[in-house]
Amino acid sequence: MAAARARQDTLTKPAGSLGRLEELSILIAGIQGKARPSIENKAMFTMAADHGVVVERVGNWPQEVTVQMVENFLRGGAGINVLARQTGTRIILVDMGVASDLKPHPQLIVRKIGHATGNICRGPAMTAEQAVQAIKAGIDIVNGEVKKGLDIAGTGDMGIGNTTASSAVFAAMTGLPVEKVTGRGTGLTDEQLAHKVDCVRRALESNKPDRSNPVDVLAKVGGFEIGGLAGVMLGAAAQRLPVVIDGFISGAAALIALGLAPPLKDYLIAGHVSAEAGHAAMLQYMGLKPLLNLEMRLGEGTGAALCIFIAEAAVRTLNEMATFGEAGVTEGE
Amino acid sequence: MAAARARQDTLTKPAGSLGRLEELSILIAGIQGKARPSIENKAMFTMAADHGVVVERVGNWPQEVTVQMVENFLRGGAGINVLARQTGTRIILVDMGVASDLKPHPQLIVRKIGHATGNICRGPAMTAEQAVQAIKAGIDIVNGEVKKGLDIAGTGDMGIGNTTASSAVFAAMTGLPVEKVTGRGTGLTDEQLAHKVDCVRRALESNKPDRSNPVDVLAKVGGFEIGGLAGVMLGAAAQRLPVVIDGFISGAAALIALGLAPPLKDYLIAGHVSAEAGHAAMLQYMGLKPLLNLEMRLGEGTGAALCIFIAEAAVRTLNEMATFGEAGVTEGE
Repeated sequence: MAAARARQDTLTKPAGSLGRLEELSILIAGIQGKARPSIENKAMFTMAADHGVVVERVGNWPQEVTVQMVENFLRGGAGINVLARQTGTRIILVDMGVASDLKPHPQLIVRKIGHATGNICRGPAMTAEQAVQAIKAGIDIVNGEVKKGLDIAGTGDMGIGNTTASSAVFAAMTGLPVEKVTGRGTGLTDEQLAHKVDCVRRALESNKPDRSNPVDVLAKVGGFEIGGLAGVMLGAAAQRLPVVIDGFISGAAALIALGLAPPLKDYLIAGHVSAEAGHAAMLQYMGLKPLLNLEMRLGEGTGAALCIFIAEAAVRTLNEMATFGEAGVTEGE
Repeated sequence: MAAARARQDTLTKPAGSLGRLEELSILIAGIQGKARPSIENKAMFTMAADHGVVVERVGNWPQEVTVQMVENFLRGGAGINVLARQTGTRIILVDMGVASDLKPHPQLIVRKIGHATGNICRGPAMTAEQAVQAIKAGIDIVNGEVKKGLDIAGTGDMGIGNTTASSAVFAAMTGLPVEKVTGRGTGLTDEQLAHKVDCVRRALESNKPDRSNPVDVLAKVGGFEIGGLAGVMLGAAAQRLPVVIDGFISGAAALIALGLAPPLKDYLIAGHVSAEAGHAAMLQYMGLKPLLNLEMRLGEGTGAALCIFIAEAAVRTLNEMATFGEAGVTEGE
């Protein structure tokens, strides 16, 4: 990091004038352990799963949309496909627990922990064993991608009902009041939001997740894709890769992962602040400052994909700009 | 715009969930006059000129840096070169009035209005005729690029001393107090900043620019690159192209251009809010909401280049995402 910082101050620009791009380039140098880091091989880990809590009618999209959207990802028609193409990012699409079984596809990794979680309003989402399996799956998948070449990882999600689970994880891990951590997801009315808040409260009351044990929180009120994404974060950091986290669901996964390994924080880049109520508070709780605020709330990794572009810009300017000496430019006083 | 908005609501995502990307795609559809706009041919108009006010020691970089940086642009070593390469944007580099003469270069357009402006603390920057010439040069250059194919224009600047001229333009066009519109440029101390504020005040007092006549303001306290960039904005808008404006100097140019043609506003995209004090107020005055805030203050078009990427993402998601019908995805209630 010191070497990257020193180089930044020799580049043909007023010191510090690239602002957060400079900070980010220095952070990535530290994470990768290279004075001249690289962002060439980029992967977005988009994990999908279903949530038993949908029977409580916490949202206004039917469960079948999860599997339909996975099929949309495979055909290249979703938002994340477009942004991944634009940024040269490969999508690692994982079925962590979609309710139905998808047809085998070369672009789909199946690591099903179950066929949808249990209804968290009435019992646990999964067993503690399944929670550990979900995290391990994420780690395994990252390790496989590292072998193919990887410089940065993004995280994204798909799962009808997963903002409810994420709100429950958020409240459980932080002790913040349920109303503060529960948002409108894909677009709820006031009445629907009040019902969702009530569901999150019941999930916490009936399960009593233990904040000091993040695996217990994941098992009691989480989701299979949330566990998988926590594993991606832990696995990527262990491999010295920066991890760009997307929105509210990735944030819930980060809370679990940080609970297990607090030093992970130095490897996380908050891609954007989502329009989902509570996301800004979630990032603040983790001490992460988002790079973008484009009022997005789609998930899938869309916010993270835009931020991977910013991270690439940060590293490219560090690596490719001429120094004052090289360019024969007089330095300011 | 209505057709683009209607299409956004058929795409496989919750309505509005791409936030400002959706708004931007609809805006660009309106500007280009196409329900399915395109952002393929991208150009950054980076204009350079020198400023006589540097004899007042308003900054801490010598005037020779302007020509040295133009040479750096031509060799591909500056920040804007790196970001233009990353985003596939061609740089249209224009000498609008650098103090010395550059060697001819195939990538350099020479439209010198003069060899540096006059010292605005003691008299006008240029004649009214030169101000008109500068604006016309910008229009001409855009028209030339439109013939080669152009979907979006960015604006950027290089010119030692040009934050002082831009502050004077800002104060003259808006009537805001000089202390509110004058910032630290490349990094001044408190004492240096007080001196710069005094210079801007003297520039206004000795020249008495007429706010109701933007050409007079440009002539009295502006700069050759500021006039050229105002012309780029007017020319691009006349050709139905969106214009992504960069930071404080592009903002001053926008104030001149908007003074001449208020409907230009609908064609301008505020790329980012710069760390230069006064830029946020400048955007607010123009009614423009910046897309990015990365605490940058380099100029050259660096902030605009990052935003051209965001504009491209906006248009690509509009064009390339599958509709609910195409993807067989059930729509939410």
